[in-house]
Amino acid sequence: MAVQQPPWTLPSQKSPEPTLKIYNSLTRTKTEFVPINGRHVKWYNCGPTVYDASHMGHARNYVTQDILRRIMTDYFRYDVHFVMNITDIDDKIIIRARHNHLISNLRSETTSLTQALIDQVREAWISYVQSKVSKGLPETERPSAGAEREQWPKLVERFQDKEWRQQGLQRDEKFEMHFNAANVTYTALVKAEEQFKSGQTSVENAHALIDLSKDVLALALDKQLGGTVNDHTIFRSLAAFWEAEFFKDMRRLRVRDPDTLTRVTEYVPEIVSFVEGIVNNGYGYVVDGSVYFDTRAFDKADGHTYAKLEPWSKGNRELLEEGEGALSPSSGGKRSAADFALWKASKPGEPSWPSPWGEGRPGWHIECSVMASAILGDNMDIHSGGIDLAFPHHDNEMAQSEAYHNCPAWVNYFIHTGHLHIEGLKMSKSLKNFITIDEILQKYTARQLRLAFLTQLWNAKVDFSESLMTGEVRGIEIAFNNFFTIVKALVSQAEAEGPKLDGKNRFQQAERELTESLHASQAAFRAALCDSFNTPEAINVLRELVSKTNVYIRTPGANLEIGLIQRVARWVGDMLRMFGLGEGETQEIGWGQERNADEGSVNREEILMPYLRTLSSFRDGVRKLAIAKGDNALKDILALSDKLRDVDLVPLGVALDDQEDGKALVKLVTPEELIKAREEKRAQAEAKAARKAAAVEAERQKRLAALEKGRIPPQELFRPPNVPEGTYGSWDENGIPLTDGEGKELSKSASKKLQKEWTLQKKRHEDFLEWQKQQQQEKGQ
Amino acid sequence: MAVQQPPWTLPSQKSPEPTLKIYNSLTRTKTEFVPINGRHVKWYNCGPTVYDASHMGHARNYVTQDILRRIMTDYFRYDVHFVMNITDIDDKIIIRARHNHLISNLRSETTSLTQALIDQVREAWISYVQSKVSKGLPETERPSAGAEREQWPKLVERFQDKEWRQQGLQRDEKFEMHFNAANVTYTALVKAEEQFKSGQTSVENAHALIDLSKDVLALALDKQLGGTVNDHTIFRSLAAFWEAEFFKDMRRLRVRDPDTLTRVTEYVPEIVSFVEGIVNNGYGYVVDGSVYFDTRAFDKADGHTYAKLEPWSKGNRELLEEGEGALSPSSGGKRSAADFALWKASKPGEPSWPSPWGEGRPGWHIECSVMASAILGDNMDIHSGGIDLAFPHHDNEMAQSEAYHNCPAWVNYFIHTGHLHIEGLKMSKSLKNFITIDEILQKYTARQLRLAFLTQLWNAKVDFSESLMTGEVRGIEIAFNNFFTIVKALVSQAEAEGPKLDGKNRFQQAERELTESLHASQAAFRAALCDSFNTPEAINVLRELVSKTNVYIRTPGANLEIGLIQRVARWVGDMLRMFGLGEGETQEIGWGQERNADEGSVNREEILMPYLRTLSSFRDGVRKLAIAKGDNALKDILALSDKLRDVDLVPLGVALDDQEDGKALVKLVTPEELIKAREEKRAQAEAKAARKAAAVEAERQKRLAALEKGRIPPQELFRPPNVPEGTYGSWDENGIPLTDGEGKELSKSASKKLQKEWTLQKKRHEDFLEWQKQQQQEKGQ
Repeated sequence: MAVQQPPWTLPSQKSPEPTLKIYNSLTRTKTEFVPINGRHVKWYNCGPTVYDASHMGHARNYVTQDILRRIMTDYFRYDVHFVMNITDIDDKIIIRARHNHLISNLRSETTSLTQALIDQVREAWISYVQSKVSKGLPETERPSAGAEREQWPKLVERFQDKEWRQQGLQRDEKFEMHFNAANVTYTALVKAEEQFKSGQTSVENAHALIDLSKDVLALALDKQLGGTVNDHTIFRSLAAFWEAEFFKDMRRLRVRDPDTLTRVTEYVPEIVSFVEGIVNNGYGYVVDGSVYFDTRAFDKADGHTYAKLEPWSKGNRELLEEGEGALSPSSGGKRSAADFALWKASKPGEPSWPSPWGEGRPGWHIECSVMASAILGDNMDIHSGGIDLAFPHHDNEMAQSEAYHNCPAWVNYFIHTGHLHIEGLKMSKSLKNFITIDEILQKYTARQLRLAFLTQLWNAKVDFSESLMTGEVRGIEIAFNNFFTIVKALVSQAEAEGPKLDGKNRFQQAERELTESLHASQAAFRAALCDSFNTPEAINVLRELVSKTNVYIRTPGANLEIGLIQRVARWVGDMLRMFGLGEGETQEIGWGQERNADEGSVNREEILMPYLRTLSSFRDGVRKLAIAKGDNALKDILALSDKLRDVDLVPLGVALDDQEDGKALVKLVTPEELIKAREEKRAQAEAKAARKAAAVEAERQKRLAALEKGRIPPQELFRPPNVPEGTYGSWDENGIPLTDGEGKELSKSASKKLQKEWTLQKKRHEDFLEWQKQQQQEKGQ
Repeated sequence: MAVQQPPWTLPSQKSPEPTLKIYNSLTRTKTEFVPINGRHVKWYNCGPTVYDASHMGHARNYVTQDILRRIMTDYFRYDVHFVMNITDIDDKIIIRARHNHLISNLRSETTSLTQALIDQVREAWISYVQSKVSKGLPETERPSAGAEREQWPKLVERFQDKEWRQQGLQRDEKFEMHFNAANVTYTALVKAEEQFKSGQTSVENAHALIDLSKDVLALALDKQLGGTVNDHTIFRSLAAFWEAEFFKDMRRLRVRDPDTLTRVTEYVPEIVSFVEGIVNNGYGYVVDGSVYFDTRAFDKADGHTYAKLEPWSKGNRELLEEGEGALSPSSGGKRSAADFALWKASKPGEPSWPSPWGEGRPGWHIECSVMASAILGDNMDIHSGGIDLAFPHHDNEMAQSEAYHNCPAWVNYFIHTGHLHIEGLKMSKSLKNFITIDEILQKYTARQLRLAFLTQLWNAKVDFSESLMTGEVRGIEIAFNNFFTIVKALVSQAEAEGPKLDGKNRFQQAERELTESLHASQAAFRAALCDSFNTPEAINVLRELVSKTNVYIRTPGANLEIGLIQRVARWVGDMLRMFGLGEGETQEIGWGQERNADEGSVNREEILMPYLRTLSSFRDGVRKLAIAKGDNALKDILALSDKLRDVDLVPLGVALDDQEDGKALVKLVTPEELIKAREEKRAQAEAKAARKAAAVEAERQKRLAALEKGRIPPQELFRPPNVPEGTYGSWDENGIPLTDGEGKELSKSASKKLQKEWTLQKKRHEDFLEWQKQQQQEKGQ
């Protein structure tokens, strides 16, 4: 028998791998995650209805979804197929588009301020006060019909009272918004009336009235003319505009594009046949050209349950109505109040598509059922969306799909991101705490926002506050930044020094402990993410590891094992990048410089071109001057060189430090630093110039004083009033005293002294006369 | 009872996840991979012995290990701790360092060519021929002692015979190398003797002799003086030099640094105590200051087996001897021939450290046991290395460690990378197919080399050949490059056009099929990597998906779904980058531009600085010229501007195209394109200059011919020999003919014509005289 290897046994695990559990809205518990096909994960995420700018609520939802998706894709390495829709057929879009269109039409038809326009606005305002504002007023204070104008100033006064306002909000949560809209229109109206009276009927004044009363006017115009709007492109282009804005915002937030994007407008024929399928399966019925889902029939059928997510919300009329949309057909003829529209017959002014039941459009919930089925088939692993959508939207979506596919479970894991509050309150336009993504990105970076969401559980309510951002989030960011900076500095120092070949073993107790900490952190990080994506815990694990490494780095007299520090920093950086917090390749230390969110991803060309253009245009300028051969060509070229340094390269963050040897030192710094340095330099230069100017002036004054001494001709120097009366008695022909006041002849030494003074004054007087002559000449010119 | 959610059931998997299996040298089968602690993987990889440049064999081994490590870390997302050692105490290092040192000493002591030096080289050569060359010669042709010089020319003649050479190689695989070394020395010796005879005894000639006979001389010097080399730094600095070179090569090959790096020189005290432990456990014994491992005692002990990897190699004397090293203590006193040194007593000329058994140094195998145990403890999940190391190195390593730790299995998975052949032959210096990493990187890029290894199984023999590289590998690279180029172009076109809002559904049958292909590819890719890292299959999966996507893209009249193409390209790019084939962040399309392997990883600063330095030094130059105010300052500045464009920016890949309007167009292209364009421009300019020179020369010739016509003075123009004898009979004082040859007076018109010719010649002659004068003046100067 040939020599054989000894037997080998499969190792037994001391500690097993953790398994991923996800908080599943279908059970309201954390359930083990089991995808249907190997590691392929089918995932549908509810996308936005595009009719307005995206706000913090969208940021919370989509950034959080993006984090979960990145964890699944980049950390757990599932092969995820992430599908998202754009809802571009919706009552909110129809209304907004019609309003915009009608206001815009009125505006372009208006050529001057007329009584008719004023009347139109007044009528609209009265109607708005009666229908919208009154809802928030106490019964007793509601304006009586025809007396709205007279009673309004009193209401404005009442509105200053905070308590009164609060009560109004309790009656109607949009009270403040409505009141403000009405008041802006009121003020505009009063002003327009005055202008009209005084003949100021310019088109600008007319447009100002329309613009300021827009919100109020649009409602009245829509009531009157909404039915005439029938051009599809009016609705389509509004949706297209806001879809583009949405993706711009998402990219700035570093949210990855979906793998597959669907638009309702591209799926209408599929929706029609899906609705037909539901009707054929016995779960839908037609009323007046609309089709409804029969919730009771579905709920009674074997193997089906209606409202799996929130069975307790089944009868919630408010939620149901909101789900049906503002332009729903009258609900008469429905078999149950809980039934909802699969297909809506369109009235004039509403876009429509052909169907077996007449011209109409899809209901809201059916859109997602159809698009998700078109891409993912008759089941999916994960469906996600904001918690607001759980009922009725997601429950209806599931019911429809299970009714169509005749399957027991269309979605295996339903995950809902939590609410967002701002400073403790629900975000709303009427509370003035409504923040668009564009606004928030002017205040914080995409990284800071994402960190804020990462420090909260994805399915918990987030309270977004100034203190969260400037306290905890900024603290975390600084801690990581400082860590990476230190490690990079240590690594680059070590590289510059080369390997230490002193035969010392640098892997001792401290290194063993830090290595253990790293390994324990890796396990804890995994456990946190397996525990239904517990990102706050995962971030904590990273922070604690960073703290421990900082302690190691700062150990006095430590013989640092750079490789170990580097290893920790690489892993921490990889995990932060995995969360979408920054740029850089795998294993790079750090998470990249946080760029202006607008910049997007960079490539070599994008980085280089601004610099190269600067180089090239400097060369252009130099050549032009050299070719023109002007008198000051060389001087101008030097000025251009200074401009390159002081002006052109500053915003690019390039510092050229001119050195004695004529070779400038090139430094890459931040533009801010450079601008600061330039300001300091300018301030210094100004201070120096000021000092110089002061010195020049002092010199001039000194000279003037000296000249002034020479104003008196020497002949007059010793005569009154230049000496007191009676100082001298007689003078020679030059005015030099011969005798004193008492007629006594002056002593020889006194005469000599006076003679000397006289000679000096003669010189001074000559200088004075010369200067005086110059002054006169200069004046004459 | 409150309303409750309906029950939910855990999904059942239609197709389960594949599990990772690895070809394990301990079973020679693919065994399921089970790490001991969760997803933490302890991995030790045998690093290089640093005494020479790294070659293709190293590239094959370390790049392949890097690929496996990346798959484990970045694809399977294990938390891997990858430890590697540097063997910097080794007999090969000792010998090489001593040789270098002794040759260098001799060289610096030598100041002229002397008889003594010639004698020294001759002695060394004779000894080399007898001891080294003779091994490869037939018994009958071995030079007789004292007659080596006379018999050598005959051997050189024989050496031309290929068959004779082949037979030599069969006797000694280093025959060619030895013969060549001897012959180079012989030739140098003959030349040196002639030079000495003719008195050419310069130091250069002496150094040439030493340098050419270095290989032969070093052996003799070492025999004589080796024992005097006792400065540790001589060994240490050789190892340090080659360690640094090794890591330079690895980084160029994109091989990641190990997580933890250990050097034998830093672990000597640990090695001593480890050996003590083995002795204490009864598996080691001391002979003359050396310690040996008792293989029989170990093999007999319960729970231990010696040579688990290759039990059939236990008695292989050749392998055992090679494992013991060239400087081993005499093996007398060993209990078994299979026993190997744990600790070697050092002789003079060998570095040594203190130990309980006297001054000595570690055996080879113990180094890895100790370092791996120091970092990873008493077991590890994976141990890797080249297949050459399986026996005795890895078997001894395991035996030692299991003897020390008293454990049954120190390594759970032993993975060995396969051999590398070059054009079908084992790579060796004597076969002249020995290729260093530096050499191969001048021919192929790091990406191409890695692709070559990826297309082969990691544990199979790779035959590296020109046809593999220029055929298959280049083909794959081009296919991926073309694919990414097309996709990027399509994406950028689509982005420029904006979203298509035509309401068309672009997710139809073709898109569904391609989506299915992508998902199937993702599953197949995973299955391939789970199948013991089957990278050739994984690369095939990617290639086929690319082909299918190309077919989709080229479908005539297709309404392409760009998002889907993008999704495929992102995944393919992610997987290629995961293999270490390129740069770029996750989800970026493509695998980056293949840079010169030297460049390493880039950041903004690295990208920008060369350009900024160019800008700055251009500005420096312009300023200098402008400040100096030389006569040609402006002209020089223009020349500098041309130089910037034609010289400085070319290697940076920046083209400045000067335009009519004085504003240059800036383009970022490859330096190759630019250099080509510059060459073409230069060729054109040269052709133009040549044409111009030819025209100037033609003009000069024409002028000379004209001047030549004026050589004859007008007085002589009509006299012989300028006209035939007898043309005219008489002349006036100016030499103008009066009568013809027959004495007949010339007609008036004939006279007039001659007069005219005479006047012309007078002018010509004046010109000629003037020119002649100039010529003489010029000569005189």
